[in-house]
Amino acid sequence: MSLFKPDLSLYLVTDKQSARGKDLLEVVESALQGGVTTVQVRDKDSGAFEIVTFCKAVKLMTDRFDAALIVDDRVDVAIAAGADGVHLGDQDIPPGLARSLMGRGAIIGATAASIEMAMEAEEQGADYIGVGPFKPTSTKPGHADPLGIEGLARIGSSVSIPWVAIGGITARDAEAIIRAGASGIAVASAICGAEDPKTAAEEIKRAIKEGIGVS
Amino acid sequence: MSLFKPDLSLYLVTDKQSARGKDLLEVVESALQGGVTTVQVRDKDSGAFEIVTFCKAVKLMTDRFDAALIVDDRVDVAIAAGADGVHLGDQDIPPGLARSLMGRGAIIGATAASIEMAMEAEEQGADYIGVGPFKPTSTKPGHADPLGIEGLARIGSSVSIPWVAIGGITARDAEAIIRAGASGIAVASAICGAEDPKTAAEEIKRAIKEGIGVS
Repeated sequence: MSLFKPDLSLYLVTDKQSARGKDLLEVVESALQGGVTTVQVRDKDSGAFEIVTFCKAVKLMTDRFDAALIVDDRVDVAIAAGADGVHLGDQDIPPGLARSLMGRGAIIGATAASIEMAMEAEEQGADYIGVGPFKPTSTKPGHADPLGIEGLARIGSSVSIPWVAIGGITARDAEAIIRAGASGIAVASAICGAEDPKTAAEEIKRAIKEGIGVS
Repeated sequence: MSLFKPDLSLYLVTDKQSARGKDLLEVVESALQGGVTTVQVRDKDSGAFEIVTFCKAVKLMTDRFDAALIVDDRVDVAIAAGADGVHLGDQDIPPGLARSLMGRGAIIGATAASIEMAMEAEEQGADYIGVGPFKPTSTKPGHADPLGIEGLARIGSSVSIPWVAIGGITARDAEAIIRAGASGIAVASAICGAEDPKTAAEEIKRAIKEGIGVS
């Protein structure tokens, strides 16, 4: 368990493809202006050096906005870039091993598409789980069956660590998902693919606040 | 610079594709029986967890044969698997950064396709460089122009750290490359793609010994 409690409420996953030629750093900055609280850099295609360079630039931004920077999959990149943590899928290094490499200060997230995976992640010392997919999503083709709100809540409530919902979520769904117990909403294309990422983030943020009962 | 001096003389790079369905662990074991002194696990396709698992199995073998285990690209996987070191291409984490993550005990190798890259790698504290390609190679399509023996020697002799030649090398070329100053011969398909990896390794080993003047 990390000593640092990040605000996971609006969790952006960077996605070059849905950004379609927009400068991804500018997208991240606009999203932070719009209220994103955690940024996960996800890049399955670039070399490690390029990802480290990108993450370092994002870190300067997240620091300014008091947001957290999480790196998908690569613990070495996360450490090299000085990121706050790492997010691990079920094909990645297990959370327990990542913790031993990154130390207690790091935020370690894990993907859970089932109650078993959620409990395993908690046991291994993950700080939060990403639960999904809520709906079918274009960002991760070949993904598991969509869970819907009930499915999300069933998995999320099986553990005592915070859970963030992911997978095809838009501003319309955010309030209900938060009411169902999620600590946050993770989005990729809903912000990276938006014409105005700042406004898109603000809309989801507003829905999240409605869900929490703060408005 | 690592404190541990590995024997780089016959350096196997694992290559699932040229192994064409053969069990890669069995290929590695046969290759070690045939005289391989260093094994680099190279896998650009599998998830980190699968690579860590494979590397741990290879480490049990390399330990038995007093050989070194090097992991391509992923410093986190190398640490998680307890490997002896990491090999870094020019798209990967820079050697200096890898050293700070892995410590002085680790072997850090870097790829050098030019004198500039070789000198940069040495400056950053790499323990050895892989110089290539010697010939066009099927394992790394889209690679730089082949260097031939003179090109290899020109790059290799520009630094004082050991250099290993790579890229389409067969037993026929090994002796001349060693005479040109290489500390070792790195091969992927010549061993992974051989019907009998042990015999293939033995043949290259023999040529290397001829080159050193030990026979």
